[in-house]
Amino acid sequence: ARTGTAEAVLCATKTDAQIGAILDTARTEGRRLLLTRLAPDRLAALPRADALDYEPVGQTAVLGALAPAATGIGIVAAGTSDLGIATEAARTLAFHGYDAPVLADVGVAGLWRLLEQVEALRRHRVLIAVAGMEGALFSVLAGLVSAPVIAVPAPHGYGVSAEGRLALDAALGSCAQGLTVVNIGNGFGAACAAIRMMKLAGG
Amino acid sequence: ARTGTAEAVLCATKTDAQIGAILDTARTEGRRLLLTRLAPDRLAALPRADALDYEPVGQTAVLGALAPAATGIGIVAAGTSDLGIATEAARTLAFHGYDAPVLADVGVAGLWRLLEQVEALRRHRVLIAVAGMEGALFSVLAGLVSAPVIAVPAPHGYGVSAEGRLALDAALGSCAQGLTVVNIGNGFGAACAAIRMMKLAGG
Amino acid sequence: ARTGTAEAVLCATKTDAQIGAILDTARTEGRRLLLTRLAPDRLAALPRADALDYEPVGQTAVLGALAPAATGIGIVAAGTSDLGIATEAARTLAFHGYDAPVLADVGVAGLWRLLEQVEALRRHRVLIAVAGMEGALFSVLAGLVSAPVIAVPAPHGYGVSAEGRLALDAALGSCAQGLTVVNIGNGFGAACAAIRMMKLAGG
Amino acid sequence: ARTGTAEAVLCATKTDAQIGAILDTARTEGRRLLLTRLAPDRLAALPRADALDYEPVGQTAVLGALAPAATGIGIVAAGTSDLGIATEAARTLAFHGYDAPVLADVGVAGLWRLLEQVEALRRHRVLIAVAGMEGALFSVLAGLVSAPVIAVPAPHGYGVSAEGRLALDAALGSCAQGLTVVNIGNGFGAACAAIRMMKLAGG
Amino acid sequence: ARTGTAEAVLCATKTDAQIGAILDTARTEGRRLLLTRLAPDRLAALPRADALDYEPVGQTAVLGALAPAATGIGIVAAGTSDLGIATEAARTLAFHGYDAPVLADVGVAGLWRLLEQVEALRRHRVLIAVAGMEGALFSVLAGLVSAPVIAVPAPHGYGVSAEGRLALDAALGSCAQGLTVVNIGNGFGAACAAIRMMKLAGG
Amino acid sequence: ARTGTAEAVLCATKTDAQIGAILDTARTEGRRLLLTRLAPDRLAALPRADALDYEPVGQTAVLGALAPAATGIGIVAAGTSDLGIATEAARTLAFHGYDAPVLADVGVAGLWRLLEQVEALRRHRVLIAVAGMEGALFSVLAGLVSAPVIAVPAPHGYGVSAEGRLALDAALGSCAQGLTVVNIGNGFGAACAAIRMMKLAGG
Amino acid sequence: ARTGTAEAVLCATKTDAQIGAILDTARTEGRRLLLTRLAPDRLAALPRADALDYEPVGQTAVLGALAPAATGIGIVAAGTSDLGIATEAARTLAFHGYDAPVLADVGVAGLWRLLEQVEALRRHRVLIAVAGMEGALFSVLAGLVSAPVIAVPAPHGYGVSAEGRLALDAALGSCAQGLTVVNIGNGFGAACAAIRMMKLAGG
Amino acid sequence: ARTGTAEAVLCATKTDAQIGAILDTARTEGRRLLLTRLAPDRLAALPRADALDYEPVGQTAVLGALAPAATGIGIVAAGTSDLGIATEAARTLAFHGYDAPVLADVGVAGLWRLLEQVEALRRHRVLIAVAGMEGALFSVLAGLVSAPVIAVPAPHGYGVSAEGRLALDAALGSCAQGLTVVNIGNGFGAACAAIRMMKLAGG
Ligand SMILES: Nc1ncnc2c1ncn2[C@@H]1O[C@H](COP(=O)(O)O)[C@@H](O)[C@H]1O
Ligand SMILES: Nc1ncnc2c1ncn2[C@@H]1O[C@H](COP(=O)(O)O)[C@@H](O)[C@H]1O
Ligand SMILES: Nc1ncnc2c1ncn2[C@@H]1O[C@H](COP(=O)(O)O)[C@@H](O)[C@H]1O
Ligand SMILES: Nc1ncnc2c1ncn2[C@@H]1O[C@H](COP(=O)(O)O)[C@@H](O)[C@H]1O
Ligand SMILES: [Mg+2]
Ligand SMILES: [Mg+2]
Ligand SMILES: [Mg+2]
Ligand SMILES: [Mg+2]
Ligand SMILES: [Mg+2]
Ligand SMILES: [Mg+2]
Ligand SMILES: [Mg+2]
Ligand SMILES: [Mg+2]
Repeated sequence: ARTGTAEAVLCATKTDAQIGAILDTARTEGRRLLLTRLAPDRLAALPRADALDYEPVGQTAVLGALAPAATGIGIVAAGTSDLGIATEAARTLAFHGYDAPVLADVGVAGLWRLLEQVEALRRHRVLIAVAGMEGALFSVLAGLVSAPVIAVPAPHGYGVSAEGRLALDAALGSCAQGLTVVNIGNGFGAACAAIRMMKLAGG
Repeated sequence: ARTGTAEAVLCATKTDAQIGAILDTARTEGRRLLLTRLAPDRLAALPRADALDYEPVGQTAVLGALAPAATGIGIVAAGTSDLGIATEAARTLAFHGYDAPVLADVGVAGLWRLLEQVEALRRHRVLIAVAGMEGALFSVLAGLVSAPVIAVPAPHGYGVSAEGRLALDAALGSCAQGLTVVNIGNGFGAACAAIRMMKLAGG
Repeated sequence: ARTGTAEAVLCATKTDAQIGAILDTARTEGRRLLLTRLAPDRLAALPRADALDYEPVGQTAVLGALAPAATGIGIVAAGTSDLGIATEAARTLAFHGYDAPVLADVGVAGLWRLLEQVEALRRHRVLIAVAGMEGALFSVLAGLVSAPVIAVPAPHGYGVSAEGRLALDAALGSCAQGLTVVNIGNGFGAACAAIRMMKLAGG
Repeated sequence: ARTGTAEAVLCATKTDAQIGAILDTARTEGRRLLLTRLAPDRLAALPRADALDYEPVGQTAVLGALAPAATGIGIVAAGTSDLGIATEAARTLAFHGYDAPVLADVGVAGLWRLLEQVEALRRHRVLIAVAGMEGALFSVLAGLVSAPVIAVPAPHGYGVSAEGRLALDAALGSCAQGLTVVNIGNGFGAACAAIRMMKLAGG
Repeated sequence: ARTGTAEAVLCATKTDAQIGAILDTARTEGRRLLLTRLAPDRLAALPRADALDYEPVGQTAVLGALAPAATGIGIVAAGTSDLGIATEAARTLAFHGYDAPVLADVGVAGLWRLLEQVEALRRHRVLIAVAGMEGALFSVLAGLVSAPVIAVPAPHGYGVSAEGRLALDAALGSCAQGLTVVNIGNGFGAACAAIRMMKLAGG
Repeated sequence: ARTGTAEAVLCATKTDAQIGAILDTARTEGRRLLLTRLAPDRLAALPRADALDYEPVGQTAVLGALAPAATGIGIVAAGTSDLGIATEAARTLAFHGYDAPVLADVGVAGLWRLLEQVEALRRHRVLIAVAGMEGALFSVLAGLVSAPVIAVPAPHGYGVSAEGRLALDAALGSCAQGLTVVNIGNGFGAACAAIRMMKLAGG
Repeated sequence: ARTGTAEAVLCATKTDAQIGAILDTARTEGRRLLLTRLAPDRLAALPRADALDYEPVGQTAVLGALAPAATGIGIVAAGTSDLGIATEAARTLAFHGYDAPVLADVGVAGLWRLLEQVEALRRHRVLIAVAGMEGALFSVLAGLVSAPVIAVPAPHGYGVSAEGRLALDAALGSCAQGLTVVNIGNGFGAACAAIRMMKLAGG
Repeated sequence: ARTGTAEAVLCATKTDAQIGAILDTARTEGRRLLLTRLAPDRLAALPRADALDYEPVGQTAVLGALAPAATGIGIVAAGTSDLGIATEAARTLAFHGYDAPVLADVGVAGLWRLLEQVEALRRHRVLIAVAGMEGALFSVLAGLVSAPVIAVPAPHGYGVSAEGRLALDAALGSCAQGLTVVNIGNGFGAACAAIRMMKLAGG
């Protein structure tokens, strides 16, 4: 919070009891809360789960009000498999007041799908891009726009692209300018970085 | 150029003849040029080398005028060994009109050196941080400021930190917010990304 | 035992029958025993399980009396996810007569939480530190105290920090002095090493 | 030879004496010969070096006549640094009678340079593509043409792209169709494979 | 499709709902469809599953007619464990009209089994080879025939050959000529590449 | 210094000018200084080099007086190749007042050489062990004594043991108790850790 | 069989139906058969399973008679966790007529346990050694006997020793003489190699 | 020596002075000595170098008499580049009294070259095989003979086969029986193991 974005509760490495305690404290203190990596089947074990705003694709829950209104950030997902991470980013942005559209299915093997969207993409002030496999989208996208592009490598694929290290290195090794990178699958971190950038624009 | 920053000439993988030809063309067309990774001992082999503005620590040369004036970007180097990369970033920024100070010797093993500088660091709108070895500086720094921090891992150290992969992963694996990462040793890329961010601030 | 600490029974790679036989022998011979990595759901299959002192967070069981009284060793856990390993260390110490407090939630992304505890930390003669992800805690902590610090990298996180190799290398590649390292997740080994060090102090 | 292409002499791992002996034998037997990875400074040590057709960019020498005439194979090099490998491929093709043009400087960070060449690229029946760094060219190219594309990853770049493993994996992990891959830097092997494919076309 | 082969639906990374929607759309539009990596137990969840032509070894389903008739492509599987991938390739070929026989159990540790089949193998115009473990089959096979050989490394084995990286590198590092490689387990991709090659032969 | 041991000047990553400046400042301020990783051929370029106490095997130089007298720390080097690192440790200890003997040539392939020395080894209160190749010495040694053992993996060997990662992992993966580990080649760090441990003994 | 040992059926990568068919054929042809990596819960699905000689620790089944009588080969297992692999080796030997004793629990951290057994170990003509974690047993053992030692690295342990790569490399990187190595977990292969060696002794 | 073969002096990691001292001592004590990895240009710096029996391909020197006479061990080198390692093995064998022929240039890409030699190969009682790149020779060879085969992976090749890890893993991952493996480039170790095996045959 001191640095502009709120800390979220990463649920994957916590027990139900620990998350429950964190929720109770936040409620007592009247604080809003963002929970990430919360699998759907864990929801039932939490106190007053029905009062949480849960979204299953990005696996996030929000305690308290959500009123996304600010614009300027766009999210690009190379394929269907990238939607989970893209949605985690979108929800993190919504929690901080940003309404960020997700543009999906623009992988570079069918380049025309991406080229048809260039004008729409150029309208955003900061772009978050999610891609797995060989991650060629990162280089192509950053070469087409002049906004900062934050690459989020996705941990899907098989063989050499399993686990996301290939997509990560593809983003880092790109010779396109204006591209910076976060950890594999870190939609939350990409959103936090995008928000720090938007503050520069007074957003 | 179409995306806001100029392409630079990466000299390390080019022959003297190739660089010479690029310089001649730029001169004929009256274009400015930034040359990176140009080792000092190669300078003599280039046409009209004395008319280039060469800087040996960052190993960059500039053809044409340099007039850095804009502010807002700061560079932090963890130690003496990180100054080469930090200077490459500074020179790339200067080429694009930014005057970015380099703050050195703030490694986290002696934390008080960094803490004494916090106020100075908070004055910048975008920060570039260069660190090698275990890269703990990235997490600590991003936790102390609210500006976007661009991590540049440095390829020095020995044993487990040789080649910079450890510092790279430390930046990516950090739980600090607002941190994004570029390739090992990529001071040029960090500067380009910082410039895209400053455009958001009208800078 | 000949070297000052007792061998423990690492249950994860043994069958119920094998552990049962070891317990029976120890009982017959009147020996105390420390069992590690014993998952809660295996307890029921062991002979006279209710006579064991079982603790589920660190997943250890003790056969025989526990009377921790000696002081001098402190344990620091960067976050909630590090508590399992920290507790394995604490229980190993308890088995050998040491009462070691666990200080949790002092990750470096929020540096002030650690700095507030510095005086408390300096009171210990040997420190065990447990951290995952990018392991920046190891460098910062060893730079703040003058006691030996034993780093235990934790195998949690995702992407580049999955499996704990990043935290391990961060501890090894640290330029902080007085830091030595044990295997990923090896709370038991850290405790044994701490005990050998305390013997130097007559503890 | 039994399988359609001639074995070449890989000089990098042979002594001058060994290469000299191979040349002498070939001359005695009246055989043509292709020598690969022969550094310029080694030429002088070989018997009757001036009678060899040496080419320094691809570092190949040919003993005997060269009469490239057949068409159908095109070579694409992403950048200047890829020309050495592209030329090794072109010379191997020339040795087997193919005249294959090299199209350079079509990296995807400036996508328009590649798109301008699409019609020219579509005229070839088999394409060899050479690229280093993040190798995004492979995916984009294979998505734009319907000929088989043979990817040759290049071992240049730095940080995560050093040694060519990233470009290799990018080619393998691509979801573009019709793309197959050879070892890092293996221009010779790509040419041999292209020739086998052209035999299908009666070429 | 624009590049000669149809895009398939990779089911492993899609939900039942997503696959169902794709099937419905294809039916509405009267398009044929190839589904890959569709585990048997998922079939029941799809709309009108009984109207799909499902094959469990290669885990593919086809919507619409299958009429494989063209010849010229042969598939070689080193052992029983390679049959799943070989069948994915065969089914992809069948979808595109090719009837490709699968020759199994010709691993090189019992070389005579392979040598007995050489004449049969030489009758094909393009060969797809599937092998795991140390992948020695790739080198031996490509040395015995003059057709292009497409290597598909298989992700089985244990210890050093687990996950298929060894077989992949064996194919890439082979000094046999005419061998090109696709990603580990990518029977679909090998088939698509083989089809592009057959087009050269008018096939 | 605040944490009990002095910072050393790691010369390998510094220029002659930078080291010269550090020496000048230390002389002006009357401070002692330890320089590590200073290759013999660099000595001549430093100011008043003849006034430094230089030792070529460990490649260290000391500015100011050396008066090692304290005992309690022993150093074990598995073979001749390990003497450089062992000597760096010995000199770092000497700089801080410890006189630590080096016992060499006790590799485990000839176990009796080590067993003959067990009594001598048990006399030390803290042991530093240096070994390369497969690092079996660490496990055997820690099982024979009851003092804390600090393992320093050595970066020599070839094939699987090149670079020292094998010896490092062997130390970390050891099931011997009381063993902690520092980075490959880090004799300096092992000495600093040993000193922190000796402070516990009032040493 | 042509090379002296029989091929075994590696069941882990085969379906029940495939194994059943292999059994049926062998029965029809009156051949004996060794099945390896056959998990206990799969037994029931096989035809006439009760007529197989199944052993659950090594997970092997034998069709036909077993009459181990020949001596000369000994098996050493470092710890309890190594017994599965040691038993796979013992059963493979039994299938070929060798009666090989297994000596367990001689890890080097408690060196005296191994030293007490030296005389017994020296009685064997060929030794198979199984060890996981840091694999120090291999070096120590090969230094104590003059028989050929075949190392089988075990895939247990955690952190740096997970999966067995550390134990494998420790065996390969050992400077002890007379040590050769097989794949991680390959008890079957070690037995086959031992048999080839015993043939030299007429055994 | 206690275990049947003599320890050799591995010169690559020793200084001239150290090797000189070892030679002097051996001469004084009248002992024979084998020196390995001794580069030709170091010879001149050794005492009485002309009295050493030096061989440059395998880079070994022998102090004292050489009288190889025993037979039974054969050495196979896949290609010209493998001769250095093969010769180190041959010289180590000669030092111990074995006269072992080296058969070269039998790589599997031209399988007939190997098949023509099968009868000659079957005459040896133990075989040492040296191969780099994808190491397919190991599997093929071990499948053709019934003697024990010791694989020595060679550290040549490029891209995926650089450094020899691929050839090493190919040997370990082979499903051929009777194959055991030593470290990359370890011709000395292969010879020592072969000698232990020959002792079984009374050789
Ligand atoms: N530049 C090259 N890249 C890859 N393989 C090559 C190259 N030049 C020759 N070869 C092949 O490498 C193998 C080993 O070559 P050699 O050592 O000359 O027998 C032969 O099959 C050659 O055809
Ligand atoms: N089994 C498969 N292996 C590799 N690629 C596939 C496979 N099946 C489909 N594809 C391709 O993978 C890409 C991603 O598929 P999708 O996620 O369905 O859009 C498409 O280009 C498909 O043609
Ligand atoms: N040989 C060495 N190995 C490891 N660390 C060292 C060595 N010598 C100095 N250091 C430490 O490395 C850090 C960086 O040193 P410097 O770059 O000189 O500021 C300081 O904390 C030094 O104390
Ligand atoms: N070329 C070689 N490859 C592998 N090991 C060797 C070689 N030459 C000597 N050795 C062994 O390496 C060990 C270390 O040698 P040294 O450093 O000379 O004591 C001794 O056990 C030697 O027998
Ligand atoms: Mg993707
Ligand atoms: Mg640093
Ligand atoms: Mg942590
Ligand atoms: Mg490139
Ligand atoms: Mg196979
Ligand atoms: Mg050693
Ligand atoms: Mg073990
Ligand atoms: Mg070879």
